Amino acid sequence: MGLLESISPRAIVASILLLTCLVHDVCARPSPEPRSAWVRKGPGRKKMADHIKRAVEGKRPRSTEPSCVETLATNIAAPKTNIWGELSHVEAAAVVQWLFAQPELNLTVTDKATAWDNTILLVESMRPNKTDALPYLDGNATAPTKYAHVVLDHRATESPYYADILVGPLPVDSTTTKWEPLTFPYTKKSGGKVRNLDADDVALYREWLLVIGASVADITRDLWNGTAMGLANDTLEIWGIDPLWQDNGRIIRWDTFWNLPTDNFGAETLLPLGLYFMSDVTGRDPSKWKLEGWLYNNIFYETTEEFRAAYWSPGFVKNGANVEGDWARTDQQGAVPPLDTAYPPTQITPAGTRFSVDMQQKYVEWMDFTFYIGFTRDTGMALFDIRYKGERLIYELGLQEALAHYAGNDPMQSGTAYLDTFYGFGPYAFELVPGYDCPAYATYLNTSFYVAETTHTHISSICLFEFAADFPMQRHSTSKYVSVTKNTHFTVRSVSTVGNYDYMFSYTFFMDGSIAVEVRASGYIQSAYFAHNEDYGFQIHDFLSGSMHDHVLNYKVDFDILGTANSVQLMTNVPVSKRYPWSKGRNRSTMALKRSFVESEADGRFNWDGNAVTQVLVVNEDEKNKYGEYRGYRVLPYTGTAHLTVKHSSNLANAAHWAEYDIQVTRQKDTEPRSAHPYNSQDVNDPPINFAKFFDGESLRKEDLVMWLNLGMHHVPHTGDLPNTVMTTAHSGIQFMPSNYFSMDQSRQTVNMVRIDYGNGTTSNVATFGQKQGNCSLDFEPVEPDLYGYTGDVVIRKFPFDPNDPYYETDSIA
Amino acid sequence: MGLLESISPRAIVASILLLTCLVHDVCARPSPEPRSAWVRKGPGRKKMADHIKRAVEGKRPRSTEPSCVETLATNIAAPKTNIWGELSHVEAAAVVQWLFAQPELNLTVTDKATAWDNTILLVESMRPNKTDALPYLDGNATAPTKYAHVVLDHRATESPYYADILVGPLPVDSTTTKWEPLTFPYTKKSGGKVRNLDADDVALYREWLLVIGASVADITRDLWNGTAMGLANDTLEIWGIDPLWQDNGRIIRWDTFWNLPTDNFGAETLLPLGLYFMSDVTGRDPSKWKLEGWLYNNIFYETTEEFRAAYWSPGFVKNGANVEGDWARTDQQGAVPPLDTAYPPTQITPAGTRFSVDMQQKYVEWMDFTFYIGFTRDTGMALFDIRYKGERLIYELGLQEALAHYAGNDPMQSGTAYLDTFYGFGPYAFELVPGYDCPAYATYLNTSFYVAETTHTHISSICLFEFAADFPMQRHSTSKYVSVTKNTHFTVRSVSTVGNYDYMFSYTFFMDGSIAVEVRASGYIQSAYFAHNEDYGFQIHDFLSGSMHDHVLNYKVDFDILGTANSVQLMTNVPVSKRYPWSKGRNRSTMALKRSFVESEADGRFNWDGNAVTQVLVVNEDEKNKYGEYRGYRVLPYTGTAHLTVKHSSNLANAAHWAEYDIQVTRQKDTEPRSAHPYNSQDVNDPPINFAKFFDGESLRKEDLVMWLNLGMHHVPHTGDLPNTVMTTAHSGIQFMPSNYFSMDQSRQTVNMVRIDYGNGTTSNVATFGQKQGNCSLDFEPVEPDLYGYTGDVVIRKFPFDPNDPYYETDSIA
Repeated sequence: MGLLESISPRAIVASILLLTCLVHDVCARPSPEPRSAWVRKGPGRKKMADHIKRAVEGKRPRSTEPSCVETLATNIAAPKTNIWGELSHVEAAAVVQWLFAQPELNLTVTDKATAWDNTILLVESMRPNKTDALPYLDGNATAPTKYAHVVLDHRATESPYYADILVGPLPVDSTTTKWEPLTFPYTKKSGGKVRNLDADDVALYREWLLVIGASVADITRDLWNGTAMGLANDTLEIWGIDPLWQDNGRIIRWDTFWNLPTDNFGAETLLPLGLYFMSDVTGRDPSKWKLEGWLYNNIFYETTEEFRAAYWSPGFVKNGANVEGDWARTDQQGAVPPLDTAYPPTQITPAGTRFSVDMQQKYVEWMDFTFYIGFTRDTGMALFDIRYKGERLIYELGLQEALAHYAGNDPMQSGTAYLDTFYGFGPYAFELVPGYDCPAYATYLNTSFYVAETTHTHISSICLFEFAADFPMQRHSTSKYVSVTKNTHFTVRSVSTVGNYDYMFSYTFFMDGSIAVEVRASGYIQSAYFAHNEDYGFQIHDFLSGSMHDHVLNYKVDFDILGTANSVQLMTNVPVSKRYPWSKGRNRSTMALKRSFVESEADGRFNWDGNAVTQVLVVNEDEKNKYGEYRGYRVLPYTGTAHLTVKHSSNLANAAHWAEYDIQVTRQKDTEPRSAHPYNSQDVNDPPINFAKFFDGESLRKEDLVMWLNLGMHHVPHTGDLPNTVMTTAHSGIQFMPSNYFSMDQSRQTVNMVRIDYGNGTTSNVATFGQKQGNCSLDFEPVEPDLYGYTGDVVIRKFPFDPNDPYYETDSIA
Repeated sequence: MGLLESISPRAIVASILLLTCLVHDVCARPSPEPRSAWVRKGPGRKKMADHIKRAVEGKRPRSTEPSCVETLATNIAAPKTNIWGELSHVEAAAVVQWLFAQPELNLTVTDKATAWDNTILLVESMRPNKTDALPYLDGNATAPTKYAHVVLDHRATESPYYADILVGPLPVDSTTTKWEPLTFPYTKKSGGKVRNLDADDVALYREWLLVIGASVADITRDLWNGTAMGLANDTLEIWGIDPLWQDNGRIIRWDTFWNLPTDNFGAETLLPLGLYFMSDVTGRDPSKWKLEGWLYNNIFYETTEEFRAAYWSPGFVKNGANVEGDWARTDQQGAVPPLDTAYPPTQITPAGTRFSVDMQQKYVEWMDFTFYIGFTRDTGMALFDIRYKGERLIYELGLQEALAHYAGNDPMQSGTAYLDTFYGFGPYAFELVPGYDCPAYATYLNTSFYVAETTHTHISSICLFEFAADFPMQRHSTSKYVSVTKNTHFTVRSVSTVGNYDYMFSYTFFMDGSIAVEVRASGYIQSAYFAHNEDYGFQIHDFLSGSMHDHVLNYKVDFDILGTANSVQLMTNVPVSKRYPWSKGRNRSTMALKRSFVESEADGRFNWDGNAVTQVLVVNEDEKNKYGEYRGYRVLPYTGTAHLTVKHSSNLANAAHWAEYDIQVTRQKDTEPRSAHPYNSQDVNDPPINFAKFFDGESLRKEDLVMWLNLGMHHVPHTGDLPNTVMTTAHSGIQFMPSNYFSMDQSRQTVNMVRIDYGNGTTSNVATFGQKQGNCSLDFEPVEPDLYGYTGDVVIRKFPFDPNDPYYETDSIA
């Protein structure tokens, strides 16, 4: 294990990407879009099509029934261009080429750059302002002018910074294309610049952490029979807190030692070793950095000498090491349960895919729902212009940020509060495993993200599928008939593995017009060394604590209920004691509804009520139904939500005020498109986006509103989280359901219902409402999709642009 | 529509059952158990087997793959007799015969009985005391002595009452079998007797309600062009509150007029008409009952004369009538959504049924779970002796009672607080519709209940099925591999339609050892007339309010975690500000865990914490794992729960104190087997079971504990509840998950996982862990099960006993 491989699993993504980059020399002319073999619809879809083909062509039909004809998702043309879509390869390459031609930017190709060179970190499509988008979506205006959102990493300076800039208009034209600082979406007015605390990540390891590791090699060998000093045979790693301490002008880090797994399993976060050291790494000159102390077994030592002296003294208490074993491996182990080797139940689509997709535009139609899919480096997948029966319900629905805030008696866990968009949900939205992550028959879409003068394409990283729930939508029985309606729903899903944790993001649409937003978590927990952590978690292995942490995931939901002039109404069930004209002069103990509106941003931050007595409704006050009720959608918890337990977090300061409440409502503004910035962790006291500043008392009645909703869970890992957290209980979800929006339940429109009339032992009628007459037969093989087609990310070089020479490479933070 | 058909849909079930009974004369000797054609496993199962048979026999195998062999549920013999099972036909018939032979009971055959005769209301198996059951289950003791639980309806008296009695031991023997009052399970010490407020149900209609209806026929004809006076062409019905007002020794009822549907749809509860009248019906002599007033449009009239005078005066405000239409019909209507007529996705079991059932004993084995199913008139299905890997987790898991507490400005809705075990969940657990209520491939069980000297058998009223979730159990990705595990779970389900509402009860078991308890609701809402009900619901149709109501459903969970000596531990995430040895003398704002135990019943009633910060753990303090943590199970909300909004309900008095908190913990006692009695509504001030009396301060540390958990929802129906409530959002659930119970996640034992190793565009390995090698092919037809087999309940006469002449008859409260 050499120096370069021992870099922190999470802390310095850019470095890792750099290390895996190949070297290219010169700039090539943009070429046409590639038509390589990997541009396909995903293995599951393909495999299912193979089955069908065999069924149709390979044998004669059985009995008198025709074979089912399985159809792929119908190809359709989106009614509008997806203005939230990704840049094409050509567009991205042209922007990169143009950037390198701007001398004032002083850019160096990433794989040639040193810590004192400027590089391009990101080139992606800039999402249009809503005010520019609506005239295009709803009227005859032309599409908003296209710009690239570029992030530059300015390191050729004593005060390195990240710079958000806009480049455009696109397509690139040497006369019209300009760049300008991107400032309007940020509350901090610093010209789109954020300081970079990671500029010296290579020096940090080479000249600091591994040097310190070497300085205590006697101790690490004695304690754990290993070293972390940059040697090929190192068995330890060093990494630490995130965000760094940022107080009084100093930048302080705590780091700790971890055992490396002895095989390929990504179990390192289960192997903490319990020795911590503190460094003042202020400034860019490693020679001025200071080691500020050691912590072992809850005893603080001011210097290495002091620590060493104590360590080698009689009576020094040494604790054991966490070592990998089957307990940390996800492979099958233990007695196979009865009948488990028989093929389990599986879902199929006998009549094929019942939805339509514009693959190019990432536009989807299922039943009466339509929407566009966007994808960015920071937050991965998001949905736009979600319409039901032609009316927009939601302009934008997407993840903003995910916080994992730990706590512990030790500085490593106490100091950890990951803001995961720093790493990005886009780069880690890996290929989905058909038949496991999504049904084998799902339709899969590719996504792409920019890194180091390449575009990586995640093959089949978004799946779209219909699914039959295991319970109906509706039913009713009497002595004369029973009526039941199937509950078929439609899901869009992606999974992002940000280091140790896998987040599964699902948006699900239902036949009654409701929508569910869900996240489930799996993967490895980040655990703590057990010593003195009793008040911060369960002990879950020999020397291991299941470090307590809060997951809080912020979603933006830009409702447009029958237009943009919306209000948030609260309706609460309250106990009342009341006299009525008929109650014989006596009070009755009963209940009633209390209604109010969220009047302004001053009361725009609140939590779900205890006992779920308060309904949160997004309504259009000017759109009453014929009975005088406001048409709207209700927002309700579906399964477990959470906001942050910690008050005034020392780790976060102003970086994640969005995590403080369950529900937060603001006036929609082009200048407040996101609740968080990926570099908020770099300046937690004065972050680029301070969400609390969105709340300046503006009226929220009949306004274009954004609801910022938190999903999450308070996670205190127990032994059942080993080796991986399981999704049965690690879940969170919110639903949106029509509330007096229509005149009646919309699922009455489906034919997939039955009414059976019966009596006295005779069934007089089975009404099936025009369900397809005449059965068909389907050959189905309970075979796994060909998982040998799972090959990882495809990379296209942007500088030089070489679309016809893709290569395969997958990066992860682990 | 004659007099007898116009009886209240919900209030007087016994009468309805009586009306539909056939007449028999004499007592026949018990005969052997029937072997009729209807004793089968359910239509879905059968149909799927037909498919397979055709696939295997009817054609040659395709390609080189063998055909899948679908297996039915493996028949096994339960390790012990199901001591919570139903009485056999022979047993029940013998008890009935014996009862009629006891002169002191003075019983009359139900269909011959008048309001002044005594009848048998119920004959079913008496559940054993837990103290008697455990030595049998866990040791070598013989099975507890079998008794019948009988309910008699003593009406041959001025003070009619229901009497719970025990008859046994069984089998009946003229020398040893005795009867005694059943008293020990009830907090009220009244010899097992509860007053009967419904004894004069026939007179109530014939001599009171319909007479009053006739007395205002001029008005009902004018208002609604109809009458409720016992005529064949009546188009109105009269029925009212439940429970009745029970104050100051008087029995007061409010009744209201409802339009009858003009077709077979059960939409009557959507058709209230807004005219109410109050009656004092104290005592058994209708001539002494008093009409106490009328209410229309929120104006109270003391007498019919006063009301009539006002009604026919100028300026009297008349409101419109709620009239049936498509808005109240569940059949398909409206534009069929795109592609909806293609057959939707469906789940199949390519390798057949992967669980085992003892049909006779209702004993089930799925993977490492085993349990028995019990079934009673009052509460329907319950599970017993739920074990995982051989260790009992839960002795008893089942519904206790379901409250639907309405509120309104009118006396009908204000006075309604249904306690549904009065009607019973058993009698209305109708046949499930395969392919709709449960997958077509499910295994179905029959259940039976006693009524009026017959046993009704609900064919296929419990379903058992495996299902593949649409998300995995576990996953993790790195740059080198991805690991994913399927999430196959197992569900036991029944549906009870208690009048207008359909409750779907599901218990689901997961491969990680977790269990989910869920209820979903559909069917017709009970709505209110719109006038003056603005503060109690939305207006949802022309003259209709979606009357607000709380559903609260109480479940008994008798945990036995590694024995019966259990404790309830609470563990809360709390914000803390704390100084650490390493924090440089500064306080850090972070969080920590606070732990405590529920010490005694004095603090045994509590709610789910806001922000879900408190974990509720059932642990065994004497069973720590090797790391010193208590082994236990966590109880957590899964999706929406509720306790009652109303404080000190005027309707309920002491009848439903179980509804007041989310979680309630008591010491397990043979004398407190249930939280509610089906006749609590008959004496709400002094009910047979007053749950609050369970809480007498006993210690709850290291004791045999029962957790009484409430599921439910605060339902404020909106237009989307028309015609029926939909199950997408009308749901509630709780999960039980292992918490440090095992050393690691138990789902690692399944082979239904994959690990894919990849890199540089090559997949080097797809590990499938012994999943069945060699694919097989399955002929599948996307055809509905033969729903013409849905025929309703089968009835066997008990007195005279005639098991070989079953007939078909299905009753419902509608």
